[in-house]
Amino acid sequence: MKTHTLLMPLDMHLHLRDGAMLETVGPLTSYTFSGAVVMPNLVPPVTEKEELLAYRQRVLTACGQSRYDVEFDDLMEEEGLGGDFEPFMTLFYQNYDREFLDDIKEEIIGIKLYPAGITTNSEGGVKSFDLDAMRPTLQAMSDLEIPLLVHGETNGFVMDREAEFMNVYELLAKNFPKLKIIMEHITTKAAVEMLERYENLYATITIHHLLITLDDVAGGMLQPHLFCKPIAKRPEDREALLKVALDAHPKVMFGSDSAPHPQHAKESCGCAAGVFTAPIALQLLCELFDRHGKLENLQAFVSDNAQSIYAICPEFKEVTLVNTPFKVPEKYGNVVPMYAGKTIGWSIEGVE
Amino acid sequence: MKTHTLLMPLDMHLHLRDGAMLETVGPLTSYTFSGAVVMPNLVPPVTEKEELLAYRQRVLTACGQSRYDVEFDDLMEEEGLGGDFEPFMTLFYQNYDREFLDDIKEEIIGIKLYPAGITTNSEGGVKSFDLDAMRPTLQAMSDLEIPLLVHGETNGFVMDREAEFMNVYELLAKNFPKLKIIMEHITTKAAVEMLERYENLYATITIHHLLITLDDVAGGMLQPHLFCKPIAKRPEDREALLKVALDAHPKVMFGSDSAPHPQHAKESCGCAAGVFTAPIALQLLCELFDRHGKLENLQAFVSDNAQSIYAICPEFKEVTLVNTPFKVPEKYGNVVPMYAGKTIGWSIEGVE
Repeated sequence: MKTHTLLMPLDMHLHLRDGAMLETVGPLTSYTFSGAVVMPNLVPPVTEKEELLAYRQRVLTACGQSRYDVEFDDLMEEEGLGGDFEPFMTLFYQNYDREFLDDIKEEIIGIKLYPAGITTNSEGGVKSFDLDAMRPTLQAMSDLEIPLLVHGETNGFVMDREAEFMNVYELLAKNFPKLKIIMEHITTKAAVEMLERYENLYATITIHHLLITLDDVAGGMLQPHLFCKPIAKRPEDREALLKVALDAHPKVMFGSDSAPHPQHAKESCGCAAGVFTAPIALQLLCELFDRHGKLENLQAFVSDNAQSIYAICPEFKEVTLVNTPFKVPEKYGNVVPMYAGKTIGWSIEGVE
Repeated sequence: MKTHTLLMPLDMHLHLRDGAMLETVGPLTSYTFSGAVVMPNLVPPVTEKEELLAYRQRVLTACGQSRYDVEFDDLMEEEGLGGDFEPFMTLFYQNYDREFLDDIKEEIIGIKLYPAGITTNSEGGVKSFDLDAMRPTLQAMSDLEIPLLVHGETNGFVMDREAEFMNVYELLAKNFPKLKIIMEHITTKAAVEMLERYENLYATITIHHLLITLDDVAGGMLQPHLFCKPIAKRPEDREALLKVALDAHPKVMFGSDSAPHPQHAKESCGCAAGVFTAPIALQLLCELFDRHGKLENLQAFVSDNAQSIYAICPEFKEVTLVNTPFKVPEKYGNVVPMYAGKTIGWSIEGVE
């Protein structure tokens, strides 16, 4: 039996939603993560300070409370829930003035930019990358050291959307060389290559994009629970992602992009995009890094790199994993996780 | 108002299944088509003469009878069902001896080859293209003028499977230059280009591959009713297919690959592959060819080319279509068609 301890795991890209869904999924993250970057694509999106603080409070309440009936996870019941968890809040990108940004900067870890309509609840996003219109906001963010988090996809052909977006990353990176730009949930070799090209570009990578390609989504039967945006790409893309993740390249961080939808919204005619991985992410990461003989790099991928990139100091948490099998529950509440019903080689042994 | 008359439309690639499903979908084809090439991938697959003749009889019975309660299509009720319809039967490829083939050749239009496990009910297909093992069968087919119909996909990455299979088509076409080889339901530019390279290669093209790309399946919400094998490919692939179809290239024929699954098998976790288009195919073809100013070529694409390629003389049927809107039913029996609930620009006006 082999154990592996992770200190202060961080999920640098997470969807917690709101209301009952937040209450379902929040504790599943706060149990094993010290903190998470919380996405602002609510309905309506988070664009004001008061909303942001109120949402932060709802997140803290949901994540810290044991109101969730955790019958599917005995460990969690034994250990108690959350508590030492910090939600790193984000604003939904629109053009903001400097005063507003200066006032809110202590409350946020960054601002998340969505191209309009590109994914769930992104209708209010950026319609065109008009640098003149965006310059005051982006320059203020740069000056105030507020990172820009980007969902980098065009509205082109589904397999090309991220690669086509590299022009926009270049434009942003060149024009705002002091602005920290995070390429969120990258899925392509093209995006990995960008990391070397601009000093101010960083990236998050999900666990599912390290594990699957389009083959897993649509190569056999169609698998709605593996359908996400950006869609999983080609084998050579996955290889490129794997390389930088397993090596814990200092510019990449783990961000699950775990995105819960109720079961009926996934298993229907017109399935919503999003893979739910929050409660199984660390187990899958241990299994993956162990299989490749790279367990020693997981700490950097899942916490240290993010601490350096964002200059954050997370809540203390020590998570011990063990290589004994863990059967993924069929559902968490009404949310079907990735690999529901399948067995993962690693489990959570304890959290301190 | 514009009308367009088609003589003896043929569907050169059709899945009718068996039992209750056959009774549901059979009449929907025999209403507007003079004949159809009926695929043999039943459970178990059709590999014997007695089975083949019995299946043919069940098809004829289902297609000729008005047992179907057609409340969703008044026209069909007015006109009566089927009758003048010929099922062109196929055997499931395995190695057969010459005597068997000589005995069965009058009963079949061709033999359908599936790589093992490549699509629905294809587990008994060809495991490897061992030409030595296959030569006696293929040579006998060539001598007896029995066409070989091929589902041309490798088990590689889903977007590459058809393009990777071109090697096999080349191997077959070169080694058996007198054997008519039909590349079924082609989806790629690579396959279109093969048509010019070997005299004995032909192709069928579906209506859905002329209309959609992977974007329509997985670019917005995931659309299980547009999920099929081979999967819809890239825009440049669709363009290549459109060109030869709209020009009614003499080596291409319409084959719907209409493949019914019960609704629950499509709208679930692990959706079966297949798009159901039989009852809307001619309307969609008219709309498509009309939009491109190519209505005059539709007759060749939907009947004449197939008559020449296969040297068949179909049952008389005259189908008149009109450019008035047709709202696609939500379901036919328990099968959800492509574009369920949407409106097509052309309708069936009458069948004689």
